[in-house]
Amino acid sequence: MEKSINTIKFLGLDMINKANSGHPGIVLGAAGTVYELFTKHLNANPKAPDWFNRDRFFLAAGHGSALLYATLHLAGYDIKIEDLKEFRQLNSLTPGHPEYGHTPGVDSTTGPLGQGIAMAVGNALAESYLAANFNRESLSIINHFTYVLCGDGDLQEGVAMEAMAIAGRLRLNKLIVLFDSNDIQLDGPTHLATDENIKQKVEAMNWNYHLVKEPNDLVSLDKAIEMAKQSDKPSFIEVKSIIGEGTKNAGTSKTHGAPIGKEETELLRQKLKFANREFEVCQEVYEDFKASFIRRGSILFERWQVLLKAYATRFPKEHIELMAIINNEIDIDFENIIPQEDSVDEATRVTIGKLITKLSSYSKAMIGGSADLTSSTKVKGINGDFDVDNRMGRNINFGVREHAMAAIVNGMVLHNLKAFSGGFFIFSDYMKPAIRIAALMDIPSLFIFTHDSVAVGEDGPTHQPIEQLSMFRAMPNINVMRPGNANEVKHAFKYALTAKTTPNIIALTRQNIKANYKLDYQQFVKGAFVVNDEENFEAIFLATGSEVEMALVAAKILKHDYNRNIRVVSMPSQELFLKQDKEYQNKILPDKNITIAVEMGSSMSWYRFADTVYGIDEFGRSGKGEEVQEYFGFTPEKLVKFFLSL
Amino acid sequence: MEKSINTIKFLGLDMINKANSGHPGIVLGAAGTVYELFTKHLNANPKAPDWFNRDRFFLAAGHGSALLYATLHLAGYDIKIEDLKEFRQLNSLTPGHPEYGHTPGVDSTTGPLGQGIAMAVGNALAESYLAANFNRESLSIINHFTYVLCGDGDLQEGVAMEAMAIAGRLRLNKLIVLFDSNDIQLDGPTHLATDENIKQKVEAMNWNYHLVKEPNDLVSLDKAIEMAKQSDKPSFIEVKSIIGEGTKNAGTSKTHGAPIGKEETELLRQKLKFANREFEVCQEVYEDFKASFIRRGSILFERWQVLLKAYATRFPKEHIELMAIINNEIDIDFENIIPQEDSVDEATRVTIGKLITKLSSYSKAMIGGSADLTSSTKVKGINGDFDVDNRMGRNINFGVREHAMAAIVNGMVLHNLKAFSGGFFIFSDYMKPAIRIAALMDIPSLFIFTHDSVAVGEDGPTHQPIEQLSMFRAMPNINVMRPGNANEVKHAFKYALTAKTTPNIIALTRQNIKANYKLDYQQFVKGAFVVNDEENFEAIFLATGSEVEMALVAAKILKHDYNRNIRVVSMPSQELFLKQDKEYQNKILPDKNITIAVEMGSSMSWYRFADTVYGIDEFGRSGKGEEVQEYFGFTPEKLVKFFLSL
Repeated sequence: MEKSINTIKFLGLDMINKANSGHPGIVLGAAGTVYELFTKHLNANPKAPDWFNRDRFFLAAGHGSALLYATLHLAGYDIKIEDLKEFRQLNSLTPGHPEYGHTPGVDSTTGPLGQGIAMAVGNALAESYLAANFNRESLSIINHFTYVLCGDGDLQEGVAMEAMAIAGRLRLNKLIVLFDSNDIQLDGPTHLATDENIKQKVEAMNWNYHLVKEPNDLVSLDKAIEMAKQSDKPSFIEVKSIIGEGTKNAGTSKTHGAPIGKEETELLRQKLKFANREFEVCQEVYEDFKASFIRRGSILFERWQVLLKAYATRFPKEHIELMAIINNEIDIDFENIIPQEDSVDEATRVTIGKLITKLSSYSKAMIGGSADLTSSTKVKGINGDFDVDNRMGRNINFGVREHAMAAIVNGMVLHNLKAFSGGFFIFSDYMKPAIRIAALMDIPSLFIFTHDSVAVGEDGPTHQPIEQLSMFRAMPNINVMRPGNANEVKHAFKYALTAKTTPNIIALTRQNIKANYKLDYQQFVKGAFVVNDEENFEAIFLATGSEVEMALVAAKILKHDYNRNIRVVSMPSQELFLKQDKEYQNKILPDKNITIAVEMGSSMSWYRFADTVYGIDEFGRSGKGEEVQEYFGFTPEKLVKFFLSL
Repeated sequence: MEKSINTIKFLGLDMINKANSGHPGIVLGAAGTVYELFTKHLNANPKAPDWFNRDRFFLAAGHGSALLYATLHLAGYDIKIEDLKEFRQLNSLTPGHPEYGHTPGVDSTTGPLGQGIAMAVGNALAESYLAANFNRESLSIINHFTYVLCGDGDLQEGVAMEAMAIAGRLRLNKLIVLFDSNDIQLDGPTHLATDENIKQKVEAMNWNYHLVKEPNDLVSLDKAIEMAKQSDKPSFIEVKSIIGEGTKNAGTSKTHGAPIGKEETELLRQKLKFANREFEVCQEVYEDFKASFIRRGSILFERWQVLLKAYATRFPKEHIELMAIINNEIDIDFENIIPQEDSVDEATRVTIGKLITKLSSYSKAMIGGSADLTSSTKVKGINGDFDVDNRMGRNINFGVREHAMAAIVNGMVLHNLKAFSGGFFIFSDYMKPAIRIAALMDIPSLFIFTHDSVAVGEDGPTHQPIEQLSMFRAMPNINVMRPGNANEVKHAFKYALTAKTTPNIIALTRQNIKANYKLDYQQFVKGAFVVNDEENFEAIFLATGSEVEMALVAAKILKHDYNRNIRVVSMPSQELFLKQDKEYQNKILPDKNITIAVEMGSSMSWYRFADTVYGIDEFGRSGKGEEVQEYFGFTPEKLVKFFLSL
């Protein structure tokens, strides 16, 4: 055991020294904790790292990546010694912070603090939801724990506090957080920034609290984890440790984020009587992991396969549903269930509410909710509230905790659910860090936003988005959709539900829109399409969302009253349009010079497509929605006037 | 008293009914609390709403604006009955949520939940800092309380939890939070989203907790506030209340955010035996406020003027310093203290660290710190850490709490300090909501960010900003500066310190930059300027930050090896450049067609200036900084190659 722990430590140090970059403090301080977790508790199969019923491990303290990679190597994952030697090198398997989908055994991308805890809450929620839905009598087909290793920094982040409050409220009892408590953070002793009573705080949030007082007291740690497993609440285990343990700067922030160097590593080797050379691993250490983590995981994995077969036989319908979730498939005949309609006149937020209700009955993967705005956003899961006495409820009351909501959605999507959030678009600001993690992880989280412009009206500038569309369009690997009417919303929702590698944002109106055009899905997924054409058009109105209807009316006025020919293009997604070939792009938007982009928001994102942008580059105003729109020039008449003035 | 409280209630209801929009629940539930606070405790002068030593009142629950405006009207602020009748109307004095700088007596813009609490923490911190610096013996020139009225939603937000942890750690004992505890939020009973023990939670964070058990028990409330004033910790007073009290839907979320209507209001009038008609106020109610709030405030204000005169006489030097802060002036001879230099070769984060240290000795207004990254950002205030035993310390250990950091900076700036924050640019994501509030309030908060590109290197994509520059450039009323070398940093810092109505962002490098050009301040504030010119240039490299040096080298190679003439323009601020007249703009950038924007970030913000953008529209990579830059094509040689391929 000691040898195994030391091997983790020195592999981590060797990696960091070789890269001349990394965080040795946590490697030395928490190696024992991670060793204990992997060898005694964590159930997973390194040969099938995506096993659906594995325990999850979220390294919230993502800067401890060397610790994780070293452990995963010993634990039999497909990470070779050569990969460890390439730690933090360009395009290696072992980047600076853990990256989901990139390195086997990494259950989530972490690094930005707090996110790991919040995603783990989502993961534990998903486990509880899936277990309630699919477990039958003796067939506990979904039944695993979600573990987190976090540091002091994680616990100072608001997103972690929000998520822990939710986990406590929902009694997610299979969530176990191990807190590597070393009293040190980057700027020095944690006392500089905090002196709160963490036991009292987590207990106030309905968590169990356990303390492992002595560093390396793995017996007590083991007991605490065992107790946590039996609990009816989520559990928080504070494990005291010494950052950079054994080195001359042990217990100080000097060991946190800079390599300790080869010389100091050599001294530590001598001190710990660890005879191996750099990157050398004794066979007995591999054997140790084989006999514990690998063996246990393999047995459980095989047992689960047997269980799954029995399940398929006894519950064929449920088995099909479950396998669809496991395989990330969604089998819905969208075109027939939610057909295009000739005329609807409703706010697109109302449309999405109806779609959620309708489509949820076709897929158990759909679960979500709003951050205390359900009645406004209409984004509400079916089947009642997810709660202690209704684990099959598919509406989640996130409370006024937007940031945790987004991270929890990510955690659920990591567990293959088609999870969605709802909120006012302005509060996407609160969710930005978590939304970015979704984009980084290539996972199809769905973030639905309503009240997507100054048309919000009376609530005023604090509640009126301006720069939010540009903000997300500037982000890599996310698809921002602002559908022009109910028919576009349907396609947008289909696109989001069937997405595999990209999170999606759908931005919707508070106010009514007339759906006076239809389109097929193939048109929609091209990102932009002509909704009104005129022969020999002299200009193009390029619009999104509620502005499409306005642009159509303006074009009609210009035609009838002034005999001016205007093409109107709806572009629900810049990202999808940019993926098309030049030919299609030129067909829709042949000339930047005659294109006028029309959107109630920051003009920035449009200069790529149009030389003239009719946008809003200042904060909104409080007033009746229609008056505010008029104030900013967003009426057909004002657009006509603007066009004639060009 | 009862009549006064009822007048507040009915004015609020009348406003909401007339607007047919607003939040009656808190008006009815918290009118008593606000009445008690204003008439018995809050020290302010409606005739001098900006009085520097007034108590501050942060209505964190900004949706209670009707309650606030009605109270401010009665309390003698320059808000007329006519203004109340224009509640939530376009360009009225009484917008949907309180707006700082717009309505007298409004101490901050609120609405996005949690922000009010966090800004109040900054305000209380500023008070404590200023008191320690300027109070002398019997002359307590700075000596006031900071009050907050918050709701359940505020306390669910992570930013509030972060800020409260900081307030507790720093024992900001003159901060008093009144929690309007009505057990209801928008989606229903708060129990849906939370069942934490709030007493235990706030006590764990080193706050006092008081409970006012019975709604409208103003005697107990009064006692609790008195005790809070004597405390050595911040105080949290939970005031139980009934949302929409007295109406048929009292105690339910139905009264939260929708007008109750005239009929229901009439019934309540009868029930409460309130004889006034709509918008009618009895003289005795005005008299009540005159005899309490107005009289007390006026006396204290006069006393303070006398105190200030005595202070001026006895402590003339300190008086001048204090008056500079009060008048938002900063008298620093920047050009001589931080002259332009011929050659420096250092990371611009190092430059800013030196500038903070150097300039802080010239102005006591300068205070700030980092979110547990001081050794990396170099953003550290002087004079030691602000702490219980060092209230003159000008470095604030925010902990890993970026969001609260930004909001606390706002709170300090609202108290006229030149407050600044430091952090990795990637974590600006966490701060976005608070930075937006700064822009909305027109206040000159300074947000310094380092590690501003993929050149961060090994930490990888979770730590490498891509879309952040575009995100902030899309935001109204904020100035984003990305200086090209140490000489530009100096001007950027001067600009930020002397700004009056716009928050500023300064984005800085982790890696070294050679300062091989100088410029004067007048050039800098134009936003863009030529740093290398060639006769008959055929193209323009338009660069920012570290890319200016790269563009200069590339231009040199193109000249020497290929005889191609390239102009190089540095554009540290798009916003400042866009403020210049067309003539200047055309002088610097005569032709979009030949302009190539060069920046290690999302291309979006550049299409306004350049038809060709050499940017990065994907997430970063973990690897050595230089290798990552090379991978994305950001070396002079690769830029040359790209140019030759055009």
